[in-house]
Amino acid sequence: MADRVVILGGGFAGLAVAGSLKRSPVEILIVDRQNHHLFQPLLYQVATGGLAPEDIAVPIRHVFRAQKNVKVLQAEVQQIDRRAKRVQTSVGQVPYDVLVVATGSEYNYFGKDDWKKEALSLKAIGDATRMRDQVLRAFEAAEFESDSARRRQLLTFVIVGAGPTGVELAGALAELSHKAIRDEFRNFDPASTEILLVEAGSRILAPFSEELSRKAERALHRLGVKVITGTAVKALDGSGVLLGERKIEAATVFWAAGVRATSIATGLGAETDSFGRVKVSSDLSLAMDPSVFVIGDAACVLGADGKPLPAVAPVAKQQGQHVGRVIQSRLAGMLAPKFQYVDKGNLATVGRRYAVAEVLGLHLAGLIAWWIWVVVHIFYLIDFKNRILVMTQWIWYYVTFHRGRRVISDVRRRSEKSS
Amino acid sequence: MADRVVILGGGFAGLAVAGSLKRSPVEILIVDRQNHHLFQPLLYQVATGGLAPEDIAVPIRHVFRAQKNVKVLQAEVQQIDRRAKRVQTSVGQVPYDVLVVATGSEYNYFGKDDWKKEALSLKAIGDATRMRDQVLRAFEAAEFESDSARRRQLLTFVIVGAGPTGVELAGALAELSHKAIRDEFRNFDPASTEILLVEAGSRILAPFSEELSRKAERALHRLGVKVITGTAVKALDGSGVLLGERKIEAATVFWAAGVRATSIATGLGAETDSFGRVKVSSDLSLAMDPSVFVIGDAACVLGADGKPLPAVAPVAKQQGQHVGRVIQSRLAGMLAPKFQYVDKGNLATVGRRYAVAEVLGLHLAGLIAWWIWVVVHIFYLIDFKNRILVMTQWIWYYVTFHRGRRVISDVRRRSEKSS
Repeated sequence: MADRVVILGGGFAGLAVAGSLKRSPVEILIVDRQNHHLFQPLLYQVATGGLAPEDIAVPIRHVFRAQKNVKVLQAEVQQIDRRAKRVQTSVGQVPYDVLVVATGSEYNYFGKDDWKKEALSLKAIGDATRMRDQVLRAFEAAEFESDSARRRQLLTFVIVGAGPTGVELAGALAELSHKAIRDEFRNFDPASTEILLVEAGSRILAPFSEELSRKAERALHRLGVKVITGTAVKALDGSGVLLGERKIEAATVFWAAGVRATSIATGLGAETDSFGRVKVSSDLSLAMDPSVFVIGDAACVLGADGKPLPAVAPVAKQQGQHVGRVIQSRLAGMLAPKFQYVDKGNLATVGRRYAVAEVLGLHLAGLIAWWIWVVVHIFYLIDFKNRILVMTQWIWYYVTFHRGRRVISDVRRRSEKSS
Repeated sequence: MADRVVILGGGFAGLAVAGSLKRSPVEILIVDRQNHHLFQPLLYQVATGGLAPEDIAVPIRHVFRAQKNVKVLQAEVQQIDRRAKRVQTSVGQVPYDVLVVATGSEYNYFGKDDWKKEALSLKAIGDATRMRDQVLRAFEAAEFESDSARRRQLLTFVIVGAGPTGVELAGALAELSHKAIRDEFRNFDPASTEILLVEAGSRILAPFSEELSRKAERALHRLGVKVITGTAVKALDGSGVLLGERKIEAATVFWAAGVRATSIATGLGAETDSFGRVKVSSDLSLAMDPSVFVIGDAACVLGADGKPLPAVAPVAKQQGQHVGRVIQSRLAGMLAPKFQYVDKGNLATVGRRYAVAEVLGLHLAGLIAWWIWVVVHIFYLIDFKNRILVMTQWIWYYVTFHRGRRVISDVRRRSEKSS
């Protein structure tokens, strides 16, 4: 009987494993709680009304429709029993010969898990539509708010964490409020919206050079984003954030301040780092159990500089392909190769036509970097159809500043109020 | 001070009223529980993974961004006080001089309101995404169901009501299951999915001629839909439907069997017909209170043939434009014109390249009718951007049979089950 390869997680890492085993005599099962692979790097576009969720999602089984050795199970992973070599899921037990844990990361609230309720983060489609609902709802409420302090609070958005996600979200929020919806309100000027990007570190976009980080900060200023560095959030609730002694009144706070591995990975019983990432051998399997691989955001793998590789798609993809090669080597009775990451660079966008890029030894900032960003993101999109659609949207968006995907999906009954 | 025109509902009727008062010295307020206008005729495409919700929705305030006499309030309408001339909403009271009730319709379960939980209908985006979730979830469950009777039940879809919506939904479901996802499952053949269209009347598509109705039925048969006419549903629950003495085991039942006016309209205190539609004067206002108009699905207006006009977009749109003219006439102190509906025909689609059409005295069935349907629907879409995007999707869809928008958005934790 063929080896059963069970892959937990249909993100970039998991899909790369399955794809690279296309011609191998194995039975592959991908388990994911969602039915779709999600192009997470563009989630902030969904949150700000630039794209529909469906533009950046593709059913996992559609990706593998032609690869007959792949089955897909939509289920929640509950427990991994390494001794019995099986995974307990919400719909039953799944036995494996080889297990690949690619369950990704979740946002790290650094011990303040009660902040999670107040400060949304961006990991799944539901997060992005909730974020979009909250932003659009704040503008709707501001239009009919007679108390000016409360209106100011509604029109203040705080983003905690100035890594690529925080910067991209801040830029997109600025363009949404200062440009896209400019003409749509009668009782206030959306251009008066305040967007604050708060970073505990000394500068934004830490993975980039100091020069690009400075340029990105200036580009954010031009978009109307206030950047506050070297400042940690002391407290946080539905009314705003406390920065040192200073209270910022803000109805909406978003969290983009670092990630940690999910509990599935940490539950393996292997050694982890302080972010819950599992330490793995040079072939990406567990030292104590070579039948289990951990890759992507869930793994702690050191790069050439001795620092852990970042939680980004290219790392996940290369690790997934590597695991495919290791499994093939083992089937052939050959020695497994060591994993080595090929760093192709860093990209982050700041609004509609500004990005910073470190690629091929070049440090770029501005429109050219933005076009590189657009091309890379479009061609990274897995499904050809989505690629065309997203490209259409992007061109449209570039030409018009329009953000048309502004649907409030969750219609709650709001508390009654008399005026 | 300018007359305050309050419009309840941002559907085709409400938008037409506001649009036709563009140059009038009035203050317009549109109240809707959603922030978006929805192109309802294509909702079934969202339910079957052909379009994203955002493709057929546009923010109401975006539609009127350049029309400065329009304000938009997202709120729930709770009560209308005709004596005090004000509307109580979930976020406060709204005074009016002229009120336009265009609150549309909801599905009519004909007294069996407990069926609503079991048999979803299609009115809002949330309905369509719930329907899509349910359909996609049934296939996911079938893939790992070992009990063959239960699998058959999961793969049986019943649609109650064979008007245009029921027929369009049945055709789209057939194409989804028999074509689009054909290669994506390993443990069952999606082509074995059973789709039953149940109609209490003697034939499908009652508004059309008998000949077109017969042709549409044959087209459904070719797509693999089983049509059962002259049969009412006796009982209905999560396990299926009872047709006379015959029980159909089906995990998924959809309801498309007629509509009734919403309770907002019926609560006006005016005379209504048996579907809760408000009877109005020849200028579409209430006989007992000319400051209140009722239009669209909420109104009962007789056509030239003495029968009530159907609940379709062209009727709503023409009535909205008429109310605009009446308000302008009144402002000018002139006699209000009578409403007369100009019937431009009937269209319904049966799958990907077959439609029936009664236009300009012609009765058409087949590909030509389908192209008429495509062109009419695309050009009816209000927002130019959506129009281009939907056209792109449609062309793609036509060429490839692909339904890529198959995202399960609601990830519930399912009950644990051991296998």
